[in-house]
Amino acid sequence: MKVVELSGGVGGARLARGLAKIQEVDLTLIVNVGDDEMIHGLRVSPDLDTVVYTLAGVEGPEGWGRHGDTFTANDELGRLGLDNRFRLGDLDLALNVYRSARLAAGETLSQVTDTVRRRFELVPLVLPATDDVIRTEVKSASGDWLSFQEYFVHRQHRDEVVEIRFLGAAESRPAPGAVGHIEEADVVVIAPSNPPLSIWPILAVPGIKEAVADHPRVTAISPLFGGRALKGPADRILASLGLPAGNQGVAKAYAGVADNLVIDTGDAADAALIHGLGVLVEDTLIKDLAASARLARAILGL
Amino acid sequence: MKVVELSGGVGGARLARGLAKIQEVDLTLIVNVGDDEMIHGLRVSPDLDTVVYTLAGVEGPEGWGRHGDTFTANDELGRLGLDNRFRLGDLDLALNVYRSARLAAGETLSQVTDTVRRRFELVPLVLPATDDVIRTEVKSASGDWLSFQEYFVHRQHRDEVVEIRFLGAAESRPAPGAVGHIEEADVVVIAPSNPPLSIWPILAVPGIKEAVADHPRVTAISPLFGGRALKGPADRILASLGLPAGNQGVAKAYAGVADNLVIDTGDAADAALIHGLGVLVEDTLIKDLAASARLARAILGL
Repeated sequence: MKVVELSGGVGGARLARGLAKIQEVDLTLIVNVGDDEMIHGLRVSPDLDTVVYTLAGVEGPEGWGRHGDTFTANDELGRLGLDNRFRLGDLDLALNVYRSARLAAGETLSQVTDTVRRRFELVPLVLPATDDVIRTEVKSASGDWLSFQEYFVHRQHRDEVVEIRFLGAAESRPAPGAVGHIEEADVVVIAPSNPPLSIWPILAVPGIKEAVADHPRVTAISPLFGGRALKGPADRILASLGLPAGNQGVAKAYAGVADNLVIDTGDAADAALIHGLGVLVEDTLIKDLAASARLARAILGL
Repeated sequence: MKVVELSGGVGGARLARGLAKIQEVDLTLIVNVGDDEMIHGLRVSPDLDTVVYTLAGVEGPEGWGRHGDTFTANDELGRLGLDNRFRLGDLDLALNVYRSARLAAGETLSQVTDTVRRRFELVPLVLPATDDVIRTEVKSASGDWLSFQEYFVHRQHRDEVVEIRFLGAAESRPAPGAVGHIEEADVVVIAPSNPPLSIWPILAVPGIKEAVADHPRVTAISPLFGGRALKGPADRILASLGLPAGNQGVAKAYAGVADNLVIDTGDAADAALIHGLGVLVEDTLIKDLAASARLARAILGL
């Protein structure tokens, strides 16, 4: 069974681990790069790395970075006067140095990511949404446009977001193979990631949204529980962008794109409020690998 | 007393520490950058960093890198498939990331180095010989031109060197202030570094050699003991380039540039063989900071 998962960072990575455990699944991840940034002159791709680390089982305790990583270089960068609030561990820094070196040598982000995937001995394919540069920016209520990392890491997503844009997206091209994998997939899964911040920048790449919209079986997983995101600002952003509260807002965020929405058992009552999409009610809390695999099987109808 | 020291890496850095300890000395270092290289896309400046680390008292046990550094990122870079034989510790990597980021942002190597010097709270000025890129290359007996790091680190200076060149030197300009500091110095000291590999690339920058040659009091310290370098290939290179053995070869390497040569007490007999240069006989073994300060005072006639 060919499965494509559109994924942001932590939530998407955790679902991917479950999908990857199912023997009959041939998995391809298409990952958000709108959060990518140049940090200390290095190309940082947080969502790609979270997906790779999580699939390899070496992710950090909060879902990003590496398990047991040290911050020797990061502390020293601060001492040298650089803004080191985006904390890169020593192992994580090595991957960012590696990616930057290979990009500077002329490789594409897809090529570098595929080499990294193989170094971590991963079976699923991991594709960036695009090899071009996309920058997610959010407009705060004060009218300022903020880069994603400024908003998310430095200001800890406290600002009210009234608008989102994806700089460079209109001129970007899908990573090689991305559209083909979507077209050939038996199921396209939209991860329980933040819809506007993590999934929209993937869909903003011309060709990807069309391929997903044309696909007959696209199943999105809501990131909300009782109307709230487990962590991160998904619920607040949906509201401040003028979308309905709760799972109705998630359904609206994926209007014309998703065919089915998976909501948590605790929110079963929302099913009656959602129109135009099939609704599946499942335990969507991915508290461990077993829960991820169980949810993955349910999504795929296995 | 204004003192300029032309310096390579370890030997020059150890002498600099002694010079810096003398209260009446106002020290400026002009440091070799011919060994600089791009490693993993980062600008690595081994001699500049060795000088800064040693002056700060945080150098590694063999004179390069940082004391107590870890190699977490370096090991990971190897696992990712990069050639990591040039071992960068995590603290050391941070400085290289910092330098590369500042250079990419448009700062000159002089500016970056001066900021680093201040972060390490060093009093002596530390100048690269030039802000331009110079590449020391050696020709092996087999006829191949090797980059400095290829020759020195990867092939562990086993090749016989029949020729040396400094790519880019002819078009380079001295770092801002370098020539002025030489002209205003009371004494110019040439460190006990490898003459062809560490000092010649400094002198190859147009304007520096002339300023040093015109200076009335230039004192070079021989790196040889009983005709041999303590470590490194200085003696073999002098021989393979056709210079006389022992301190006569060092004197020849600095002909027209140095006014005095300091040789080790064990080699006092060499004094009679050296012509055209004043010879000082001193204990030149820098085994600790006290030895460095004592030698420094002797060189300056204090």
